[in-house]
Amino acid sequence: MDFGYDAATEELRARLTAFMDECVYPAEAEFERQAAESGWRTPPMMADLRSEARARGLWNLFLPGEHGAGLTNLRYAPLAEIMGRSPRIAPAATNCAAPDTGNMELLAMFGTEAQRRDWLSPLLDGRIRSAFAMTEPDVASSDATNIATSVVRDGDEYVINGRKWYASGAMNPDCAIFIVMGRTSRDAPPHRRQSMILVPRDTPGLTVVRGMHVFGYTDGDHGGHAEVLFEDVRVPAAGLIGEEGGGFAIAQARLGPGRIHHCMRLIGMAERAIELMCARALSRTAFGKAVAEQGVVQDWIAESRVRVEQLRLLVLKTAWLMDTVGNRGAHTEIQAIKIATPATVEWILDKAIQVHGAGGVSQDFPLAGLWTAARALRLADGPDEVHKRSLARRELKKHTAKDDR
Amino acid sequence: MDFGYDAATEELRARLTAFMDECVYPAEAEFERQAAESGWRTPPMMADLRSEARARGLWNLFLPGEHGAGLTNLRYAPLAEIMGRSPRIAPAATNCAAPDTGNMELLAMFGTEAQRRDWLSPLLDGRIRSAFAMTEPDVASSDATNIATSVVRDGDEYVINGRKWYASGAMNPDCAIFIVMGRTSRDAPPHRRQSMILVPRDTPGLTVVRGMHVFGYTDGDHGGHAEVLFEDVRVPAAGLIGEEGGGFAIAQARLGPGRIHHCMRLIGMAERAIELMCARALSRTAFGKAVAEQGVVQDWIAESRVRVEQLRLLVLKTAWLMDTVGNRGAHTEIQAIKIATPATVEWILDKAIQVHGAGGVSQDFPLAGLWTAARALRLADGPDEVHKRSLARRELKKHTAKDDR
Amino acid sequence: MDFGYDAATEELRARLTAFMDECVYPAEAEFERQAAESGWRTPPMMADLRSEARARGLWNLFLPGEHGAGLTNLRYAPLAEIMGRSPRIAPAATNCAAPDTGNMELLAMFGTEAQRRDWLSPLLDGRIRSAFAMTEPDVASSDATNIATSVVRDGDEYVINGRKWYASGAMNPDCAIFIVMGRTSRDAPPHRRQSMILVPRDTPGLTVVRGMHVFGYTDGDHGGHAEVLFEDVRVPAAGLIGEEGGGFAIAQARLGPGRIHHCMRLIGMAERAIELMCARALSRTAFGKAVAEQGVVQDWIAESRVRVEQLRLLVLKTAWLMDTVGNRGAHTEIQAIKIATPATVEWILDKAIQVHGAGGVSQDFPLAGLWTAARALRLADGPDEVHKRSLARRELKKHTAKDDR
Amino acid sequence: MDFGYDAATEELRARLTAFMDECVYPAEAEFERQAAESGWRTPPMMADLRSEARARGLWNLFLPGEHGAGLTNLRYAPLAEIMGRSPRIAPAATNCAAPDTGNMELLAMFGTEAQRRDWLSPLLDGRIRSAFAMTEPDVASSDATNIATSVVRDGDEYVINGRKWYASGAMNPDCAIFIVMGRTSRDAPPHRRQSMILVPRDTPGLTVVRGMHVFGYTDGDHGGHAEVLFEDVRVPAAGLIGEEGGGFAIAQARLGPGRIHHCMRLIGMAERAIELMCARALSRTAFGKAVAEQGVVQDWIAESRVRVEQLRLLVLKTAWLMDTVGNRGAHTEIQAIKIATPATVEWILDKAIQVHGAGGVSQDFPLAGLWTAARALRLADGPDEVHKRSLARRELKKHTAKDDR
Repeated sequence: MDFGYDAATEELRARLTAFMDECVYPAEAEFERQAAESGWRTPPMMADLRSEARARGLWNLFLPGEHGAGLTNLRYAPLAEIMGRSPRIAPAATNCAAPDTGNMELLAMFGTEAQRRDWLSPLLDGRIRSAFAMTEPDVASSDATNIATSVVRDGDEYVINGRKWYASGAMNPDCAIFIVMGRTSRDAPPHRRQSMILVPRDTPGLTVVRGMHVFGYTDGDHGGHAEVLFEDVRVPAAGLIGEEGGGFAIAQARLGPGRIHHCMRLIGMAERAIELMCARALSRTAFGKAVAEQGVVQDWIAESRVRVEQLRLLVLKTAWLMDTVGNRGAHTEIQAIKIATPATVEWILDKAIQVHGAGGVSQDFPLAGLWTAARALRLADGPDEVHKRSLARRELKKHTAKDDR
Repeated sequence: MDFGYDAATEELRARLTAFMDECVYPAEAEFERQAAESGWRTPPMMADLRSEARARGLWNLFLPGEHGAGLTNLRYAPLAEIMGRSPRIAPAATNCAAPDTGNMELLAMFGTEAQRRDWLSPLLDGRIRSAFAMTEPDVASSDATNIATSVVRDGDEYVINGRKWYASGAMNPDCAIFIVMGRTSRDAPPHRRQSMILVPRDTPGLTVVRGMHVFGYTDGDHGGHAEVLFEDVRVPAAGLIGEEGGGFAIAQARLGPGRIHHCMRLIGMAERAIELMCARALSRTAFGKAVAEQGVVQDWIAESRVRVEQLRLLVLKTAWLMDTVGNRGAHTEIQAIKIATPATVEWILDKAIQVHGAGGVSQDFPLAGLWTAARALRLADGPDEVHKRSLARRELKKHTAKDDR
Repeated sequence: MDFGYDAATEELRARLTAFMDECVYPAEAEFERQAAESGWRTPPMMADLRSEARARGLWNLFLPGEHGAGLTNLRYAPLAEIMGRSPRIAPAATNCAAPDTGNMELLAMFGTEAQRRDWLSPLLDGRIRSAFAMTEPDVASSDATNIATSVVRDGDEYVINGRKWYASGAMNPDCAIFIVMGRTSRDAPPHRRQSMILVPRDTPGLTVVRGMHVFGYTDGDHGGHAEVLFEDVRVPAAGLIGEEGGGFAIAQARLGPGRIHHCMRLIGMAERAIELMCARALSRTAFGKAVAEQGVVQDWIAESRVRVEQLRLLVLKTAWLMDTVGNRGAHTEIQAIKIATPATVEWILDKAIQVHGAGGVSQDFPLAGLWTAARALRLADGPDEVHKRSLARRELKKHTAKDDR
Repeated sequence: MDFGYDAATEELRARLTAFMDECVYPAEAEFERQAAESGWRTPPMMADLRSEARARGLWNLFLPGEHGAGLTNLRYAPLAEIMGRSPRIAPAATNCAAPDTGNMELLAMFGTEAQRRDWLSPLLDGRIRSAFAMTEPDVASSDATNIATSVVRDGDEYVINGRKWYASGAMNPDCAIFIVMGRTSRDAPPHRRQSMILVPRDTPGLTVVRGMHVFGYTDGDHGGHAEVLFEDVRVPAAGLIGEEGGGFAIAQARLGPGRIHHCMRLIGMAERAIELMCARALSRTAFGKAVAEQGVVQDWIAESRVRVEQLRLLVLKTAWLMDTVGNRGAHTEIQAIKIATPATVEWILDKAIQVHGAGGVSQDFPLAGLWTAARALRLADGPDEVHKRSLARRELKKHTAKDDR
């Protein structure tokens, strides 16, 4: 259980920090300006940022194995944390942004050679973007057995009908490919009824209906969150990922790393929030003393620090477990960080906002946007309550056979 | 201490509820559509809603005394609660929307005859809108002694220089008049240095710079929240409200009713949230049973109900006190509801959002917008911490002379 | 909905306050000394306090109707609050202490003439004490259908077998009578299987096994909380209260007033805690300033005040409802106050303890004992979770037939 | 940053666990019985438990260096956690109980050869017990500069006058020696005014006045918490520990390990609570299903697990830091665990109690006692608020020189 950062990790941290200091933080204000005018397109300055990151060897860091940078989860964790400090720019600039990351992992793990050639390569290369369509507006999608979009085999094709929403990234015109989770069977055991399939964006019958909001944000700069309608959408059967009925298992495999990446970045957001909170508290005076001297503000700062330290260690332990015993062996810990991190970081951001007064809810500080991201993650990839229920059941099972001591 | 609704109030409640059922709720979806396309203008359908409300005798209900409907606070409270159930439409439709309400009260109480003729009459008539400019981006404005915008007498005029932000309503082209809080003295006792002055929107030197956001929202439908620059803005001295140095006292007078109106509406928002939460929980199934059968969801519903009941009673008591012993006599209670209501209603809205899943943060339900309104009110009109500090000091004073029993 | 205190109530409040100031508070220290030496007996000084209270017309104030002082709930509420400020002395001194109060109400409402003569009269007169035995160690007793103590008719007698615990008051040698809830049928509908029956303490087969603790306290001064064993205990059938199978309904009837009395007293405890917290904070200095000047302590004081004000209003409304529409009509509100009051007052007491440092957990201040009483009430008379579940279900029912607006 | 348990630690964990399973858990019920009858004496069965532990090589494990078992903090942490599962027996049985542990560390680090011979040896050998007297009833002792007990040099002696309380262990007749913190100067810099001095229990003028309570508990089995009066108590100057004016620095040195030991044991208490909570929830049925199936209970279990995992990692990191960079280098982390652990474990215990119903507050389960221990630790060794204030100031200092990014 060694969580220390080894030399290679320290080198990457230094390199990434230099990129943040030299390229990312200075670009934030202009990025927001461009984003406000770019609609669903990536702000134009992102192209240069991506070139620069790539030139510095900061590219595809998230992806273990031969196709990416080959880092372990434990090595990637502190890098993702640093990226999370500027989450609208850094992950995209380094090709480490959701949902592309999860989609690339999925293709790297489960894709056929043709699928990898057609979709993984251009994604790794940053030439296209992708979307992941699982959640449906009409059912409680946290229970995957509720998924109602039908995917029906018809000769060499599958025919897809249904409605999805919150397909992140799909509003971006560069988004070329959707991975869609649908129901291929009504009769199989409940967790063998779903399959995942590749659907090129320009397939007839696929309509990107509108961009969904998150609180007032459209998240246009990273492609928004689309409602997508599938009406007799026909795709080649070769686009099926893995086997028919394997969708649930693949989703679980995809969500493990996805969840820990979110948590790593959230810790970076929390560190940013603490920095901003301290800086603001030190710079303002009210009722005769610096805001930093107010006891309640000090209480928030201390609690924030204490909570972040705990979260980081649990995330690192989870990464270490994923590396050593596999994602399945780290299942409880992945759930634990998914339960703890968004809620805790949301709390920290709330306090940072409060210290900023009206500025905290405005577009002049990143706090309101970061808050929204943290809040949304109490729902995305499964609401807290679903994870808690599952974790509690496993805990109870441990005690079923024990004596009451 | 009788909080019961008398017959006149019950009649108004019934009339207002009919207006909500017949005109407001059915208009919500279309209103959002129009708002999305109207920029900073009031959505066009609002004109008809206002006519209808006025025709039904639901107009200026907020204003006590001869100029308005003449209701006591205790009578207005349950009406404001009903309006709060659809807070983007109902208050505006009935000419009971902030910041016009506070500005009208202020003119009714402190305005000269000329000021009332020029600005109160058209506001009461709904022909113009208004803004209130107090908060400044460069100082902690919750401490009014920090206000730095200078208002300097020069012959028959005052010259104004400074920068304000979050001047709600000011982006609306119909906004014709600003009430500005500025510093008229550096030497007077700290709470006698500020004054309030009327500034017509088209005065040279006044620049409406941009609309500030609240989380991702611009609140364009009710005129947004403007950053406003004052550069050598010259206005007639006759535009001063009350006396020079009276700004702080007037602000206190203005904020009392403003705060209770916010709290009344928040209670309506909470009731709406509970309704939506129950309806959603009853309509969805996950993991084999209705969401309404999940123990955690039931816990949230029960807590929400218990908390709303307490809040409403404290708001009603506060209204009753304002009516019977005056705003100053109700000072502690006004602070108490300002501390308790936004935070509690924010909590309830968070739970309602969680029950709605992704829909909760979307534009398809009013919850994300209501949450934002509640959250912002933990800062607007003074952050919670300022009210708590003040209330605690008064509590401590009560015990200074007592024995320790 | 008039919660004001009428003249009669104000007169009683003044009289009771005088008794507190002149007799109760000054007696507290000596009472604790005597209690530490009295084991399960009432501290001897209580006899004088009871005489004094009775002489001052402060006796049986809790009991509505002909047998007691005849006060409404709304009139009794502020008196119970005052008593709650010194809850180990004042309720006992005025013959207003649980569980005798509930038992007297029950006998007044449901008792036969003989039962009232034999047990209600001496209780009203303060000549004996009583106990109420419902909770069982072997089942989750919050679900009354779990009650397993058997009460079997055999000719003119009932035979009782089973084990109870937390029969409050039963360790006191003056406790002469038990009201026992047991199961008289296995076949009747679930809520018609229980009955209540009178069991004189000296009945053969009844063993008072031991005193249960509440945290470290035995509560010996008011008779402790007994574990009681019933082995073939035979009592005359005339001791049945109400009809066979009526136990659940009677328990509900008994618990309504019992719960509101607890809540009224808890509010008095909270006021006492705020007083002590303020006094201590004003009297101590740490790190260069009075503890009362620490921001975090001010935050606690403000929150405490704001929460108590809300609680009191909800309790008063509940009392008013019980008086006007009956206990059944006030069912939701009774649950609401039972959910909100102990938890909130526990929070306030925790903060008052923290301000007192080590003194807060000691025997030198009443805070640790008050905290324990509040904490125990989150379990006694039904744990919070049971009340919340029930209240949520009723709330959901209101929305079952409504549209989703 | 390797927190893994090495082979030596695993061996000790196995040995200690065997001792717990074979000797400690089976002894708990009888220990409580004996404790109830032993007053301030150690329950007689403890002698055998201590012999057994010593024979098994489980003795003085807490003490690093030559005098004790020589374990690092990182190795001791998991052992202390195991002991914390039965905190009234296991630490005492292994001679690892506060306050002796802290006193032994202090003598090992700062004692003269004579002091070590006279007091450290018999303590290590378990022949005597000791007490630590720092807190005073008359001042806010969390601010050490408030300490008022005077220690005045008079020739070869020091003369001590003052009053202490919560001197844990001092009621035990085996307690032979006090370490007393007093004020030796009024003029030195504030943190150089205090000194520590050894005071044998039988010194004339030293009066053990009474045992203080902690929520009803006397903690008699481990010597209670004494109020101690010092009236012209004369001790040889050779009993001074370290140098005159060094008391504050020594206290800081003493409290570091003391705080982490408390936190380690608290984690064991939390694990015990989770075990009990699960076992109880699985064994009881209410309202038609197992309590373990109630959503709210599952939520508590999940939260408890998630929080404990985070706490343990932070405690292990702190231990590792103390071992590698010293207690001073781990100062922030020691404060962080002192802030987080008692409060979090208190929360977990509260939920375990709630699941147990009345049993949870009773003497039949260890939960109420464990809760009290956790609650008291939010005050002991410095209240949370003092640690938070200090931690926040250090955090703010980090940001003083930084840009606002």
